Amino acid sequence: MSDQLHLVDVISQRLSRFIADRRESSTVNGPIALKMIDAAAVTVSGGKRIRARFCHAGWLAAGGTTTTEDIIGVASSLEFFQAAALVHDDLIDHSDMRRGRPSAHRALEAGHRDEGWVGDSADFGISGAILLGDLLVAWSDDLLEESITDHPNAPLVRAEYARMRRDVTLGQFLDVAQESAWVTQPESDHATHALEIASLKSARYSVEQPLIIGAALAGASQPQLASLRTFGHNIGIAYQLRDDMLGVFGDTVVTGKPAGDDIREGKRTLLVAYTRERLDAAAKDRFDEALGDPELSANEVHHIQSEMQASGAQERVEAAIAEHTAVAIAALEAAPLDEAAKVDLLKLAQAAVNRSA
Amino acid sequence: MSDQLHLVDVISQRLSRFIADRRESSTVNGPIALKMIDAAAVTVSGGKRIRARFCHAGWLAAGGTTTTEDIIGVASSLEFFQAAALVHDDLIDHSDMRRGRPSAHRALEAGHRDEGWVGDSADFGISGAILLGDLLVAWSDDLLEESITDHPNAPLVRAEYARMRRDVTLGQFLDVAQESAWVTQPESDHATHALEIASLKSARYSVEQPLIIGAALAGASQPQLASLRTFGHNIGIAYQLRDDMLGVFGDTVVTGKPAGDDIREGKRTLLVAYTRERLDAAAKDRFDEALGDPELSANEVHHIQSEMQASGAQERVEAAIAEHTAVAIAALEAAPLDEAAKVDLLKLAQAAVNRSA
Repeated sequence: MSDQLHLVDVISQRLSRFIADRRESSTVNGPIALKMIDAAAVTVSGGKRIRARFCHAGWLAAGGTTTTEDIIGVASSLEFFQAAALVHDDLIDHSDMRRGRPSAHRALEAGHRDEGWVGDSADFGISGAILLGDLLVAWSDDLLEESITDHPNAPLVRAEYARMRRDVTLGQFLDVAQESAWVTQPESDHATHALEIASLKSARYSVEQPLIIGAALAGASQPQLASLRTFGHNIGIAYQLRDDMLGVFGDTVVTGKPAGDDIREGKRTLLVAYTRERLDAAAKDRFDEALGDPELSANEVHHIQSEMQASGAQERVEAAIAEHTAVAIAALEAAPLDEAAKVDLLKLAQAAVNRSA
Repeated sequence: MSDQLHLVDVISQRLSRFIADRRESSTVNGPIALKMIDAAAVTVSGGKRIRARFCHAGWLAAGGTTTTEDIIGVASSLEFFQAAALVHDDLIDHSDMRRGRPSAHRALEAGHRDEGWVGDSADFGISGAILLGDLLVAWSDDLLEESITDHPNAPLVRAEYARMRRDVTLGQFLDVAQESAWVTQPESDHATHALEIASLKSARYSVEQPLIIGAALAGASQPQLASLRTFGHNIGIAYQLRDDMLGVFGDTVVTGKPAGDDIREGKRTLLVAYTRERLDAAAKDRFDEALGDPELSANEVHHIQSEMQASGAQERVEAAIAEHTAVAIAALEAAPLDEAAKVDLLKLAQAAVNRSA
């Protein structure tokens, strides 16, 4: 555990060093350029560094030993990518808060007001955040590339990283579309769609692909990669299902996000699909009416939460989390990986699946 | 000229082939995934392929001979990047049209309505376009990488491409911020800021860096790269100044964009800085009031156009275009580059600077 804490610090320091370099080289572009750099820095401060930690764990599991610049750089690059995804995601979800602070577009909006600039502050916040996300993606690529140039395993790392980017972007698009498109699909497909989206935008992106990127850097064998994929994908699904639960039942103080955020946003999660399966036609209509209504009161949110519990959906999703976790653990136990690294992977996986924020 | 036309076709075919591959591998993700791919395909159809053509010209100038998969792939990857930039740019500028068709967010919005999906169509258009831009950036990287893997000059190409991405993103941010921030800056700095933004977001991005990327792939010498930078940067500035002029005085039928689009958007171009220098306080206040007002009538747009002419600003910007073009041509003439390639570069540059769309 103290190793993990140490790793989180090392990752944060690497990100800070990268940003300091960029800040220095951007001084020539004047104070507004530095504002953009500083806004980018805020987006990577804090955070659980889940992806960096899985990446590092994958590297260890495949025989990585001395922690060198390359694995730390690669793992850190995933955190820039995650920051980019969150900046765009918060725009898409109209989220005002992130990790208990204003989201990037809200922070840029406030900056616009504080500077006494003319024009629409909210509009500037949105435009600025689109570009801030674009910059963070570029930084992610830059840090990845400067960490692996000339590394013999660079082509494999690049290929998995590229696949990760495509998968998560498509997954996000499907997720957003599904908030609207479910109405045109047979109800029997809803749970399947929710799981497909969870696979693309989260299971692969948050766990499987970081693991594989780290393992590929360490020169993992095909059987090692295959085991890590099975383990990572199942933990990743469980991780997303936990996220869905926290988005509905999470404690604001712990998550840093308003309670019921996903309900007001209208996310079509497995929890939603399972709940609807057990509602009669009238109740389902009311449920659909409420889900995705940004103006929902605390009482109305509470009512939806109760329906999710009473329908057994909450319990079924908990069972799915347990099942995917069990499949993952079985794959890990049978895997041709370093035994000490397996213990670390297991701890990391359990923390990801049992978290409360 | 017919060579250039042929090149444009080859680039379009390479883009289409890439998209067809992606479409095939995304079939497994269902009809909504294919919608995203198809929306991406629309964003790269048409267009003048300026960046691909400069990239190819830089490659020829540095001694590239047989047109092989690598240079075509690299040049085409720049067009995916440009498509991504336009998708995000149209969101930021609230542009409804692009190349005479609905912009990406408007097309996605219309698709949402046509499908009979629930929820806010405009909101889906915005969210979808943020992600569509992200996908196009990923595709740009993918096509670049698959074209240069194992190429001996890949590190130089990657480095310049990375710099291009950072420069244009920062330039776009400064451009957007400047629409608001000019009010807090000394008026004597406005023209300088406009030129800095033109340098980052356009001169480097649209001309200099594509040229260098192509030349680096061909193994250009340092003196060749230096000449191409001077040539490219000056042509790039002239290209952006022409763009500023077309954004104000352009013919809708030819540009495919509404007349006076940049005026309603409030872009703080060199043309604006020069105009304001010659207005008295009262006229300047009215001018500032009107600039950036999205509701401006055709008559009000016409009044601003007249002020830009009467103040001599239009003429001064034309003179600046001519001056930068002259510097570029002088650099080209003295450059240690293939003489036939110089003729091509000159034609391409003149087409970029003298265009009407």
